[in-house]
Amino acid sequence: MKLEDLPTPCLVLDRAILGRNLRAMAGALARHNVPLRPHMKTAKSIDVARMALEGQPGGITVSTLAEAEYFSAHGIVDILYAVGITPQKLDQVAKLNAAGARIMVITDDLDAAEVIASHPAAPRALIEIDCGEERAGVLPNDDLLLATGARLGSCLTGVMTHAGHSYAGRGAQEMARIAEAERAGAVLAAERLRAAGHAITVVSAGSSPTVRHADNLSGVTEMRAGVYMFGDLFQAEIETHALDSIAVTVLASVIGRRPGRLLIDAGGLALSKDRSTESAPHDYGFGLVLDAQGKRRYGNAIVARAYQEHGVVTLDPMQPVTLPVGGRVRVAPNHTCMTAAAHDRYYVVEGDDEIVAIWPRVNGW
Amino acid sequence: MKLEDLPTPCLVLDRAILGRNLRAMAGALARHNVPLRPHMKTAKSIDVARMALEGQPGGITVSTLAEAEYFSAHGIVDILYAVGITPQKLDQVAKLNAAGARIMVITDDLDAAEVIASHPAAPRALIEIDCGEERAGVLPNDDLLLATGARLGSCLTGVMTHAGHSYAGRGAQEMARIAEAERAGAVLAAERLRAAGHAITVVSAGSSPTVRHADNLSGVTEMRAGVYMFGDLFQAEIETHALDSIAVTVLASVIGRRPGRLLIDAGGLALSKDRSTESAPHDYGFGLVLDAQGKRRYGNAIVARAYQEHGVVTLDPMQPVTLPVGGRVRVAPNHTCMTAAAHDRYYVVEGDDEIVAIWPRVNGW
Repeated sequence: MKLEDLPTPCLVLDRAILGRNLRAMAGALARHNVPLRPHMKTAKSIDVARMALEGQPGGITVSTLAEAEYFSAHGIVDILYAVGITPQKLDQVAKLNAAGARIMVITDDLDAAEVIASHPAAPRALIEIDCGEERAGVLPNDDLLLATGARLGSCLTGVMTHAGHSYAGRGAQEMARIAEAERAGAVLAAERLRAAGHAITVVSAGSSPTVRHADNLSGVTEMRAGVYMFGDLFQAEIETHALDSIAVTVLASVIGRRPGRLLIDAGGLALSKDRSTESAPHDYGFGLVLDAQGKRRYGNAIVARAYQEHGVVTLDPMQPVTLPVGGRVRVAPNHTCMTAAAHDRYYVVEGDDEIVAIWPRVNGW
Repeated sequence: MKLEDLPTPCLVLDRAILGRNLRAMAGALARHNVPLRPHMKTAKSIDVARMALEGQPGGITVSTLAEAEYFSAHGIVDILYAVGITPQKLDQVAKLNAAGARIMVITDDLDAAEVIASHPAAPRALIEIDCGEERAGVLPNDDLLLATGARLGSCLTGVMTHAGHSYAGRGAQEMARIAEAERAGAVLAAERLRAAGHAITVVSAGSSPTVRHADNLSGVTEMRAGVYMFGDLFQAEIETHALDSIAVTVLASVIGRRPGRLLIDAGGLALSKDRSTESAPHDYGFGLVLDAQGKRRYGNAIVARAYQEHGVVTLDPMQPVTLPVGGRVRVAPNHTCMTAAAHDRYYVVEGDDEIVAIWPRVNGW
């Protein structure tokens, strides 16, 4: 089967680019002798997970319990569920752990910590630390940290933090500074908990930009990252990923033509309504339009408007496109995690137009 | 099963509100004695389709061939596939038609018209008319209209148009003016094609706002609309839907608490990244936060930031919320078509917290 045989819109994954991205991340971490716990929220695929775990200890991060169930059923049992746990979800964690998984949960809440510790099948728990993102987490120097640790008691295994504010960072120097805040926050929290008598074995940190740019990771036991596997236009804009190393694109068909623009069958559902490049140096609308081989042959052609199933492509006057209705393009996404989630599978290529595999994704909750 | 037993995030559909919305639309069209061809792109559910077709001729509109396949397999065979057809998709249409469906396709392209007409199992085709949206379609007074009709030959069954620019309209008077442009464009195109000797039996128009506000639909043989079934915050902002008649909400759990805000487990995936209310009179962020019963008890609490699985809710200082981690809220969506598409099923309630049914959705392509 070839690209031209695929129904559109659909998701294309270039395994050659994926492999290159994985090697680049492994190299960045090898400098520090710190292992990677890849975040599977982007790829949601056992086939990608196996590639991402090459040379790593074997643990992963997930963003949903659907991912936890899927990956543990496929034999990956060391799992960090990196979204604050609720009392209701503890039962499902316990069920998966009873079936062989080793899921760790996270919390930043005193009451939730008590519920975790008193669960009949209490899982290992990490305290979530806020290292500057201001989304979730306890501040590392807050009294709440030790109070939460005391409530967790013997469940407490470590701390975790995510410098999501690195997405607002620009340039290697600023990223390195955010990476240091991430490291220092996690390590400070771990040291305070150790001083209070807790055995802290996990000090987990990471985001794709900070893993890439960190100067020093001493005291951290593992790093987490996900979007680096595929990359996207936003990561390219913040200079953590090369524009020509985006591994996932949406294959679309031309469904209409007007002077200066095309209509394609990839709209807000197939691409997502993510507009993260709006505030980046370059605004790619809802995605950058590439040729059917995934090459940037159409200049600055972008999906300027996205309806549910229609994408309006504005063409680059310097690089006109003459495609008939039914002609194919590929769209590089703003935010690959959001775009991929609309699709139930990857059509895998390796640098050309031959489909070498079809890999399913585990979407939903 | 009750709401409190559901895993979060998930999609809740209130069948009582849905029924009310369906009756309101049926009443609006009954004034004109014009039937409805409901657009199933929003609901993507056979159970909702059956309710929406009560008292109507039985035809539907779809936005994907996955919907066409699903609905025809469930016995709804009169289908308008309302996205410009490509040569590659004709084979699948032919296959479904051979199995009993009666799918009509649309085009606004001369070359595509020729491919349709020369297909061994050529389907009935409508010419798409641009009545002002400037997305797709032939202008009704353009020579291209008659040329396209000539190419389609005996496949040509009618014309269709969609005044999607009604979404930029505000107020009943402006909506009525856009509705008249929609009607007049479709009817003019039909009249010109008839004058050229074509038998035009379908003159199809519609969008939720124009169907609701049209003063006159003479010459139109059917109207199409979809989002009216569920409604959303954007439709409420443009005054085609009541804010308390939004039938679909996302049930979410609190996963973190800070002064003035909550963190919930519904983020950009569960809610979508749609920001259509950004330019509406009131900006609801990524959704309006209701209590677990779907009532507006939290004032202007909105999802101000949306990460992949995290939603940051800013609370209304006048209506504080005291919910523990694990507490439940419901989020009314900006754009219900986009939000619903992230979920594979509806948990159906009827005004209270009892789950009376689970209805699957047909997502993807």
